[in-house]
Amino acid sequence: MEEFENLVADVFSRKCTSRSVLETITGRWAILALVALHEGSYRFNALRRRVDGVSEKMLSQTLQALERDGMVLRVAEHTIPPRVEYSLTPLGREAAEHLVPLISWSEDRMPQVAAAREGYQGR
Amino acid sequence: MEEFENLVADVFSRKCTSRSVLETITGRWAILALVALHEGSYRFNALRRRVDGVSEKMLSQTLQALERDGMVLRVAEHTIPPRVEYSLTPLGREAAEHLVPLISWSEDRMPQVAAAREGYQGR
Repeated sequence: MEEFENLVADVFSRKCTSRSVLETITGRWAILALVALHEGSYRFNALRRRVDGVSEKMLSQTLQALERDGMVLRVAEHTIPPRVEYSLTPLGREAAEHLVPLISWSEDRMPQVAAAREGYQGR
Repeated sequence: MEEFENLVADVFSRKCTSRSVLETITGRWAILALVALHEGSYRFNALRRRVDGVSEKMLSQTLQALERDGMVLRVAEHTIPPRVEYSLTPLGREAAEHLVPLISWSEDRMPQVAAAREGYQGR
């Protein structure tokens, strides 16, 4: 890790890795998966039911990206059928803790946004 | 706005408007545009330079969605050439205030994520 430690991160710079970190955790399904996993660990199908509307393929890709980026832990038990459980790493937990208020805000401000949309259409 | 006030928002439900609120503010370019505008108002081309890598079309679409959702104010002055300035509404400012810590976190945690990615490739 040392080799990365002296880099200056700037998310506004297109080539900075920090932008791809931001994009991993703010992807359409990643936000919901991280916040769901913040509630507790999930098996794949249960997580898919929680994140209403996500396809098997998209959830699988999302979890793989989150695992690659060190945010999600995938534990497979060698049972028949195999039981695979997903949970947050400490890094993923930190990310989720920043996303929870964003989700609450989106829910809280839904009426204002809906009203703005109505006003915009009426222009 | 009254007609919306009694709705219960749940971002995990695919049809809930709050999910589209979340998606507006966490779009790839929307996050950067909102946080840039949190620094101050911008004209289109200056904003495009600040949000490195965004195309004219994508920035235009992003700003339009943010304007529609009541987060960004577009003020056109009738000068020659026309001067168009973008700034945050109070609602957009609130959104940006939730996004700033997310961006800082992505920058701060870049080394950990880069190390996780290296480890993942090496598996």
